[in-house]
Amino acid sequence: MLPVAMSSPSSTSSAPTLRVRVLGSAAGGGLPQWNCGCPQCARARAGDPDVPSRSQPSLAVSADGRRWSLVNASPDVRDQLARFPALHPRPGTRDVPLDTIVVTNPDLDHVLGLLILREALPHRIVSTAFVRDLLLDHNAVYRLLEPAWGVTRLDQPIDLDREGQIEARLFPIPGKLPTWASGLAANRPEATTGVRITDRRTGRRLVYAPGVQSLEAATLAEFEAADLVFSDGTFFRADELERLRPGAPDAFAMGHAPITGARGTLPQLAGLRARVFYTHLNNTNPLLDAASEEAAVVTRTGVGIANDGLELAL
Amino acid sequence: MLPVAMSSPSSTSSAPTLRVRVLGSAAGGGLPQWNCGCPQCARARAGDPDVPSRSQPSLAVSADGRRWSLVNASPDVRDQLARFPALHPRPGTRDVPLDTIVVTNPDLDHVLGLLILREALPHRIVSTAFVRDLLLDHNAVYRLLEPAWGVTRLDQPIDLDREGQIEARLFPIPGKLPTWASGLAANRPEATTGVRITDRRTGRRLVYAPGVQSLEAATLAEFEAADLVFSDGTFFRADELERLRPGAPDAFAMGHAPITGARGTLPQLAGLRARVFYTHLNNTNPLLDAASEEAAVVTRTGVGIANDGLELAL
Repeated sequence: MLPVAMSSPSSTSSAPTLRVRVLGSAAGGGLPQWNCGCPQCARARAGDPDVPSRSQPSLAVSADGRRWSLVNASPDVRDQLARFPALHPRPGTRDVPLDTIVVTNPDLDHVLGLLILREALPHRIVSTAFVRDLLLDHNAVYRLLEPAWGVTRLDQPIDLDREGQIEARLFPIPGKLPTWASGLAANRPEATTGVRITDRRTGRRLVYAPGVQSLEAATLAEFEAADLVFSDGTFFRADELERLRPGAPDAFAMGHAPITGARGTLPQLAGLRARVFYTHLNNTNPLLDAASEEAAVVTRTGVGIANDGLELAL
Repeated sequence: MLPVAMSSPSSTSSAPTLRVRVLGSAAGGGLPQWNCGCPQCARARAGDPDVPSRSQPSLAVSADGRRWSLVNASPDVRDQLARFPALHPRPGTRDVPLDTIVVTNPDLDHVLGLLILREALPHRIVSTAFVRDLLLDHNAVYRLLEPAWGVTRLDQPIDLDREGQIEARLFPIPGKLPTWASGLAANRPEATTGVRITDRRTGRRLVYAPGVQSLEAATLAEFEAADLVFSDGTFFRADELERLRPGAPDAFAMGHAPITGARGTLPQLAGLRARVFYTHLNNTNPLLDAASEEAAVVTRTGVGIANDGLELAL
């Protein structure tokens, strides 16, 4: 992998830059997970510097560092916004510099935060019609959000900011419907997506794919065309859950290709020209321990491991 | 008001004590509220010691300090449990010492946290059948919780812990259906309740009433029979919202009798024999500023203002 040149977020250059902040780098449940006493959760709970706490998955992007858009809204969104002054309201007002929340799929870990931000709705929400309808048709609580919720088709550009400086496109990724929706609808390509975010001023591309059940040619093509990739790092090994709880499903059955082993994603991600980070890490993943041998295996390839609060400028 | 004697939570006495912890003392939105730049939210955000941050409303109770039950599960529940070591899982296990979550009404501020605790469901959930059915019949996401969700009738005792040392009873309080449920069902006495928690070993009673639209005789009788009362402190004045945003509804229309003014609750709460705290404070309430004249008015009567993390033993 050849990392592309990136300016630091505090760069004073006037060249247009796409700014990115990882709001949450864990999978659903976060680290520590409320009901889990495993060694990694226990170390995070105790403040071990090698195992920093991580909140649930979300990303923020901005064309100018002033107004921001989110990809997904996790159950931790209130805390994630509190920790990020750029998304605080202007003093004396209720003006929050939040433009758009793009929703990649109907997992509760990606959409519960929409309800936490339900008051006032200064922002708009965008997803495929399938995802919107699945949530709104079957959940009265989500119908509160209908006035703010627009839809997009796969591979159609959406303006994220008001000036149209950055755009998002949802692209299909093989995945599964979340448990709550099983039986309500048949799975479709519009159910699970990744998002390509392009800076129209520079042509630079970011791809965020928190759920990749298998790294197929189309997804790989998205990654190959990108300058910055955040990809599914849920599980390091396919049998990670089974090692803890015999009979538990494997990574693929959970909708997430593992990082290593047969059909693991690391070899292909390590070969990309883009800067690449694993994110959406489950609390079982040994990458959560920065001092682990597994973390060294990944970082030696040039692939990074996202942390909460990681900021980049592209 | 004559405060009853209370032991400190760290008391080593072997006398049975009901332990109580305020997990969240704000109304929905918390303090600071994500989209609000008002002076109080700004001061909380800046760490002003007179205006401590507050999370969304919830209470924890325990018969022995080891196993706990909750009243309601707020959107901040993950953070609230993280801050409370007594509710952490046992190291090396997924055993969380959580027995029961009692739900007083279907407000999202009281029930979104149920979805954040949806994995594993080591606990049980209890509400009136009206509240359960309203949530489950109209929201596919809540049907994930059905296996854990039991129902109770008004004024029926429920065992909170396994030994039956403490019981809860829901009693009706005049209130309104939340916005998401308007049009789905007619309001009923089972829709909005307070909870009376009784220590069967000592007969001591705690009453928690986060939404009191008007302090009617039946609610007042519950308060009069209690030793410890947490009551609705959403608004200090009836026109608190209108002062900020002309045309906004008054406190009563929002389902919350104000603390002062006509039909204000302070005079009656100040006359109770119980120890009394206001909780469920909205971000507009001047009581959030510990140095305010309004806070002095309340505390001079002997009524307290609950903070996040307040612990009491009864």
